[in-house]
Amino acid sequence: MSSPSQNTLKIGIIGFGPFAQFLAKTMIKQGHSIRTTSRSDYTDLCTQLGILFFRDMTEFLESDNDVILLCTSILSLSQVIKSIPFSSFKQPTLFADVLSVKEYPRDQLLQVVPQDSDVLCTHPMFGPESGKDGWKDLTFMYDRVRVRNEVTCSRFLQIFASEGCKMMEMSCEEHDRLAAKSQFLTHTLGRVLSEVEIEPTAIDTKGFQKLVQVKESTTRDSFDLFSGLFIYNRFARQQLNNLELALESVKQQLIKRMNEELDRSMYRPSN
Amino acid sequence: MSSPSQNTLKIGIIGFGPFAQFLAKTMIKQGHSIRTTSRSDYTDLCTQLGILFFRDMTEFLESDNDVILLCTSILSLSQVIKSIPFSSFKQPTLFADVLSVKEYPRDQLLQVVPQDSDVLCTHPMFGPESGKDGWKDLTFMYDRVRVRNEVTCSRFLQIFASEGCKMMEMSCEEHDRLAAKSQFLTHTLGRVLSEVEIEPTAIDTKGFQKLVQVKESTTRDSFDLFSGLFIYNRFARQQLNNLELALESVKQQLIKRMNEELDRSMYRPSN
Ligand SMILES: NC(=O)c1ccc[n+]([C@@H]2O[C@H](COP(=O)([O-])OP(=O)(O)OC[C@H]3O[C@@H](n4cnc5c(N)ncnc54)[C@H](OP(=O)(O)O)[C@@H]3O)[C@@H](O)[C@H]2O)c1
Ligand SMILES: NC(=O)c1ccc[n+]([C@@H]2O[C@H](COP(=O)([O-])OP(=O)(O)OC[C@H]3O[C@@H](n4cnc5c(N)ncnc54)[C@H](OP(=O)(O)O)[C@@H]3O)[C@@H](O)[C@H]2O)c1
Repeated sequence: MSSPSQNTLKIGIIGFGPFAQFLAKTMIKQGHSIRTTSRSDYTDLCTQLGILFFRDMTEFLESDNDVILLCTSILSLSQVIKSIPFSSFKQPTLFADVLSVKEYPRDQLLQVVPQDSDVLCTHPMFGPESGKDGWKDLTFMYDRVRVRNEVTCSRFLQIFASEGCKMMEMSCEEHDRLAAKSQFLTHTLGRVLSEVEIEPTAIDTKGFQKLVQVKESTTRDSFDLFSGLFIYNRFARQQLNNLELALESVKQQLIKRMNEELDRSMYRPSN
Repeated sequence: MSSPSQNTLKIGIIGFGPFAQFLAKTMIKQGHSIRTTSRSDYTDLCTQLGILFFRDMTEFLESDNDVILLCTSILSLSQVIKSIPFSSFKQPTLFADVLSVKEYPRDQLLQVVPQDSDVLCTHPMFGPESGKDGWKDLTFMYDRVRVRNEVTCSRFLQIFASEGCKMMEMSCEEHDRLAAKSQFLTHTLGRVLSEVEIEPTAIDTKGFQKLVQVKESTTRDSFDLFSGLFIYNRFARQQLNNLELALESVKQQLIKRMNEELDRSMYRPSN
């Protein structure tokens, strides 16, 4: 293990999109050594950040990482995993991921990660927007799927704990069950509100202002992310169904009441 | 005009439900003289508040009001108006209302209010929940539908302005157009979220927490209020349609992406 005296880690990030960049800033601040590779070329950005960017996966892997952190989109995970030459790993490594669904990366990683390496599945329940003023009291979910090297794993978790995150250990299955009811629903309504083009008005109520915020923060995330929440969380379909049924039910309640009002105001005998 | 030296008003409130009680507390604090009548008997509550409650509409009207403030449910407005003996008014009075729809009470009031009396249609864009810590920066919408007695009208508006409300003059039509897109939509989604029984989870995102708050605050209001927003705002039906179409569109986008993913992962030729 490198730099044990300082508790710092060498973290290799695969996929350097918006969320990885957001995480990297705090990791760099904490003194960890960050190196990264991605489909797109982030050489300039990484130079600015003072970290190494590798265009080549093999060179990236040779940079001797304590942790390989997967930050790719949910949809590209299997493709990205295929591009990693797992057989060439020389030392046990902690494979961690931050995907917003959890059973899927767990299953994928358990299939390919070498037996002597560890697997930690995590989901920081925040992003560049909700975490812009720090991570204090924001929830960090994790599942120690296969952990033998306690030192590396707890140093990695400490990145989030030391920023004040609410550390929430939970199985990947329980995560997906709850996230379908909460995060997926939130993203779906955010997209729906974007489709109906809600905008602040001169007479906003507090409640409506909250919906505008939900629309803005969810549509800032990629459609890849949103569709990943749906396609790779087996509990999401049921929640989408529930949402449709609920809207239909509320509509029927309104129509029923409207008909009662019509009957009343027209003195029509109900028939 | 009574008590002109103190700028206080004698305000007769018709309909003493949750929202009227909420308004009355601040009006009493400001030194206005409040008297009220309602379908239900609020004698005990009014005694506690130190104000007069009249079971009888005629006696209530004889209590000599500068302002008659309608705070009944939207659905009961026409019935309540029928119970008011407008012909017996002896002095010009300001008729104001706080209903959450505005074209409907405007039209109703213009039909019945004596010619020498004034009509002011208002909508405080807040309630017992959002206004529990004071009314500062909360929006107060009003339309001076027919105002000749400027003194009484501006004293009435001053109740809200002096608490720090954002005073927003706007036509009833414009209000209803905007409120259908904002408040009605918020209440509809709040009811939908209640139907799908969302509850806080151990891994809530900030966005989801906002939805839980919207659910809680909108379902605290009566179903009468919610259905009034729908039935008596001619712009609401279109918004409900838009919401349904938007959900369907988001669903189709997800299914399209899911099929693309299936095609990709199964190496199926798209056909
Ligand atoms: N945004 C958040 O608030 C948040 C919060 C918690 C967890 N997460 C998770 O973090 C991960 C990254 O999220 P994100 O917000 O940055 O956006 P995203 O759209 O979910 O993912 C973008 C990343 O995926 C890579 N990628 C996309 N398609 C690819 C492909 N075909 N082949 C290889 N790489 C591909 C991108 O690479 P290039 O940039 O090189 O093109 C980029 O690094 C996701 O799994 C997401 O669920 C996000
Ligand atoms: N709640 C809010 O946050 C809010 C904000 C702005 C405006 N408003 C508006 O304020 C008004 C009152 O709202 P609310 O929250 O108190 O609840 P609501 O359910 O809309 O109205 C309750 C009031 O309507 C009366 N009422 C209901 N049915 C009646 C009938 N058939 N005949 C006579 N009176 C009847 C009730 O009388 P009893 O109590 O005597 O039974 C009570 O005074 C509504 O027009 C609403 O749109 C409410």
